[in-house]
Amino acid sequence: MKILVINAGSSSLKYQLYNMLDESVLASGRVERIGMDSSIVTHEPAGKPEARQVSEILDHVTAVRRVLEMLVDAEYGVLTEIGEIDAVGHRIVHGGETFKESVVVNQEVKLEIRRLFDLAPLHNPAHMMGINAVEANLPDVPQVVVFDTAFHQSMPRTSYLYPIPTILYSRHKVRRYGFHGTSHKYVSGQAADYLGKPIESLKIVSCHIGNGASCTAILNGKSYDTSMGMTPLEGLMMGTRSGDLDPAIVPYVMNKEELTLSEVNSMLNKHSGMLAVSGLSSDMREIEQAMEEGDAKAKLAFDMYVYRLRKYIGAYTAAMNGIDVLLFTAGVGENSSALRKAVCEGLTFLGVELDDEKNAVRSKETRRISSESSKVQVLVVPTNEELLIARDTYDLVKRKLNG
Amino acid sequence: MKILVINAGSSSLKYQLYNMLDESVLASGRVERIGMDSSIVTHEPAGKPEARQVSEILDHVTAVRRVLEMLVDAEYGVLTEIGEIDAVGHRIVHGGETFKESVVVNQEVKLEIRRLFDLAPLHNPAHMMGINAVEANLPDVPQVVVFDTAFHQSMPRTSYLYPIPTILYSRHKVRRYGFHGTSHKYVSGQAADYLGKPIESLKIVSCHIGNGASCTAILNGKSYDTSMGMTPLEGLMMGTRSGDLDPAIVPYVMNKEELTLSEVNSMLNKHSGMLAVSGLSSDMREIEQAMEEGDAKAKLAFDMYVYRLRKYIGAYTAAMNGIDVLLFTAGVGENSSALRKAVCEGLTFLGVELDDEKNAVRSKETRRISSESSKVQVLVVPTNEELLIARDTYDLVKRKLNG
Repeated sequence: MKILVINAGSSSLKYQLYNMLDESVLASGRVERIGMDSSIVTHEPAGKPEARQVSEILDHVTAVRRVLEMLVDAEYGVLTEIGEIDAVGHRIVHGGETFKESVVVNQEVKLEIRRLFDLAPLHNPAHMMGINAVEANLPDVPQVVVFDTAFHQSMPRTSYLYPIPTILYSRHKVRRYGFHGTSHKYVSGQAADYLGKPIESLKIVSCHIGNGASCTAILNGKSYDTSMGMTPLEGLMMGTRSGDLDPAIVPYVMNKEELTLSEVNSMLNKHSGMLAVSGLSSDMREIEQAMEEGDAKAKLAFDMYVYRLRKYIGAYTAAMNGIDVLLFTAGVGENSSALRKAVCEGLTFLGVELDDEKNAVRSKETRRISSESSKVQVLVVPTNEELLIARDTYDLVKRKLNG
Repeated sequence: MKILVINAGSSSLKYQLYNMLDESVLASGRVERIGMDSSIVTHEPAGKPEARQVSEILDHVTAVRRVLEMLVDAEYGVLTEIGEIDAVGHRIVHGGETFKESVVVNQEVKLEIRRLFDLAPLHNPAHMMGINAVEANLPDVPQVVVFDTAFHQSMPRTSYLYPIPTILYSRHKVRRYGFHGTSHKYVSGQAADYLGKPIESLKIVSCHIGNGASCTAILNGKSYDTSMGMTPLEGLMMGTRSGDLDPAIVPYVMNKEELTLSEVNSMLNKHSGMLAVSGLSSDMREIEQAMEEGDAKAKLAFDMYVYRLRKYIGAYTAAMNGIDVLLFTAGVGENSSALRKAVCEGLTFLGVELDDEKNAVRSKETRRISSESSKVQVLVVPTNEELLIARDTYDLVKRKLNG
């Protein structure tokens, strides 16, 4: 069975084609600048050279058609015919309270995703364009939607409710949803497999640290609490997002700087975080580079980033009354040994003990970086959200065919 | 030496008169409804019956005069003459970055408190009226100001800076200040004395839990981090304040409900917290009562309150890489054994072990409520902000007289 995974943005579309026999990636790529002139398709077939095409792609329907053409292209293709694609899986940012797991797309599912536009105005409409574009090109191929929020639907009310007037929940759905759920679910499963223990027996704090970043408390294999909230702004300090701050700062700053609602949102989401403190970059590699060269602001940004992450690990350990596994994943979490070291140095009270040599090793494999005597297993687990989307799609379509 | 302690609000004024020979309270009381008709003075002289007067008190100058008259009243008084008052100490909510400790009032100090009106628009102007009213009535008596924020001025930048554009700090002083500093300082000192250890040797998490609530990490006897932020809104869930929430909720709700800046501030400060979740009360005693009678919303409010506090204790333990002392103070912290029990039950991973019998005892004394074998000393320490204000006033005025 071959499955195409799609992550559609408003002007971009990323894809991977999986062969589910061995979970290998047959091809991956992306379409950029959809709706603009000189749209770019970058296509990477396994074992063949990368292809790059510049042309005009005015909508998502055309973008999907171009991807399909690439997949069967005589030179760059990896399929004999389009009919080999058995199913398509989509990444969807917001599933609200409706979607507690992945589902096969039908009219009702599409309507519900539309109802959630309000909660994810930047993401869900673009995902919907992706779904419709696949439907237009491959009307008979089943589609599955996999939600960033679904894994966190297991949170108890004490974690997901905010202490604000309850009408805001009933009328406007204001609650914690959490994001990166596909990643947290995948890496916590990988961690349990790696340790050879049932996930239900482990208290896990999972740190997904990329340009966006979130921390999740996983108890009995389920999300118990997570740092992102109604939106991805809450929680950890991130590349360009502030994370937590005194809510009273929002109206204070709006008043002082005469900002509109959309301007203050943009300030906190795009011009804050590591970028604002360092005055330099939102990219951890550049921050670390500058730190090594003695840049004081980069050092401050790094220290604040680490400090705020360490507090969340402490908070979630208290939330679960203990911790067995601390894991790091995503771009920064997988690659920055300096970040992991700085975070763990302040957690010796938990019995966390890093093996500096193991921590320094770069690898694409799941690995332990704590010492033999560490009371907490510290792991680095490469995330793979696309693979989990492919697996969910495979499982659901197989079940549908069989039942 | 006799010292009058004053806490001036916009329409109220609380006072205590201390005899610093033995730190006894000679009288205490309050003036309410200043500027309205039927203002009320309630005066409680030590060892005499309480007095209550209703009259018209149109401003703070008159309010202070009425207090002074009470203090020398033939029937309710405790002084022979006004001249016995050696100094006056004021509680001031916001000292900004200027005031790192208490100071004797002079013109420059008054100007600086005025410059801080913007950061505490509800409090500092009222305090200034209190200072001026004392000056008008007792022009030759030295005055001292004691700031809620001063103790927290020791926080490192990693604790007090927010990851937002730095211009908001340089131009508008947006940073974490923290409050309840006088209380956190007093109770942490009391705790060290009680344990017979130098405070510099202890890692303390201090929980000041009243209608307002804050949690402070105290390292080397100094505030290292605290949960209230630029304003008292951030941090723990409180009686009527939300505490932490996704900052993006503020513009979202303003848009959905068409709220002004002042309306959203009011919603989060006065109509949120325990009151909003329980739909019943902001008072922990009423919440506990309702819980015992089976009220599910009261139970939810209590559980959220406990959960959010427990996460802060975990976060600050991680911030200091350990904890020696966990202390509870203020109205709820001193009196709710149910709250303390619920919080500590989830902290056994730290070696916290409560002695249920000791926890159930009600007392006005500092006491240990953890078991002999607990790895963390859990204490209840009655706070006394007025006494610390009196002591600071005494010390500064004595130093001024001597030097």
